[in-house]
Amino acid sequence: MRVLGIDCGAERTGYGIIESDGRNHRLISAGVIRTDTKSPFGSRLCEISRELRDVIVRYGPAAGAVEQVFTAVNVKTALKLAHVRGIALLVISEAGLEFGEYSPLEIKMSVVGYGRAEKGQVKMMVRSLLGQAIESEDACDALAVAMCHAARRATERRIEAVRR
Amino acid sequence: MRVLGIDCGAERTGYGIIESDGRNHRLISAGVIRTDTKSPFGSRLCEISRELRDVIVRYGPAAGAVEQVFTAVNVKTALKLAHVRGIALLVISEAGLEFGEYSPLEIKMSVVGYGRAEKGQVKMMVRSLLGQAIESEDACDALAVAMCHAARRATERRIEAVRR
Repeated sequence: MRVLGIDCGAERTGYGIIESDGRNHRLISAGVIRTDTKSPFGSRLCEISRELRDVIVRYGPAAGAVEQVFTAVNVKTALKLAHVRGIALLVISEAGLEFGEYSPLEIKMSVVGYGRAEKGQVKMMVRSLLGQAIESEDACDALAVAMCHAARRATERRIEAVRR
Repeated sequence: MRVLGIDCGAERTGYGIIESDGRNHRLISAGVIRTDTKSPFGSRLCEISRELRDVIVRYGPAAGAVEQVFTAVNVKTALKLAHVRGIALLVISEAGLEFGEYSPLEIKMSVVGYGRAEKGQVKMMVRSLLGQAIESEDACDALAVAMCHAARRATERRIEAVRR
């Protein structure tokens, strides 16, 4: 299945598209949407929505996945991020994609096999699983969310198959 | 000027449109967008965006105003609200409307003349200023934001006129 992962952020929103059977992942595209911090926040949300819609039209994923919002860092940052996350959810829903959301712990467990893995370890595993290096940390995080969703769905499908 | 005020909420989003010179306000339309709490959050955001876009197309406001997000109540509620607020900002920006955001204190100061006014007092003042009762508290709050924006813009225009 083709999965879009989104790593929401007010300044930089990472995205990654993979083709995956849940175990073998192939990179289709990845990038970062950077918005001008001097622009009004509304225009920046517009730009993020436009670029995410473009990515969906261009690569036609069947599912979209995002990280659950968490407030560990800073409430003000979390609130800004939640605005962007609202846009991501809207775009995924408008496009009629299957939706998934995962905690940072679930994503790290799925990709690195260890829930408290550091950023660098996630990056290394994403590189290893895709067989190519991804420079941007935001794109890496987005790809990790996409991999987590693909793995989860594959597991669910396997369980369904056994039950039948 | 014609102003759209939006009172964001995960379950109920109020909106109100007024025609105003900053002192005299005329009600154009007001209502509440209710979404099914059993539906996926993404679909609910879709519905809110669709209805807000409809309101803008139907009544053609020149400006859109929202309340600033605040965390006084509960972080989890504030985060959900911030998702909806992201949608409101997106829709306002996509439609090319002038944008305003105000703290609850500014809104109450502007409408009631007292920053710590209670919900009931805001409702009474909105009713008095519009010459008609608005049943929904969410629509009332949205109208209060619209009035606050209209008053602020009128003051700014007056200051600009004096400076010239």
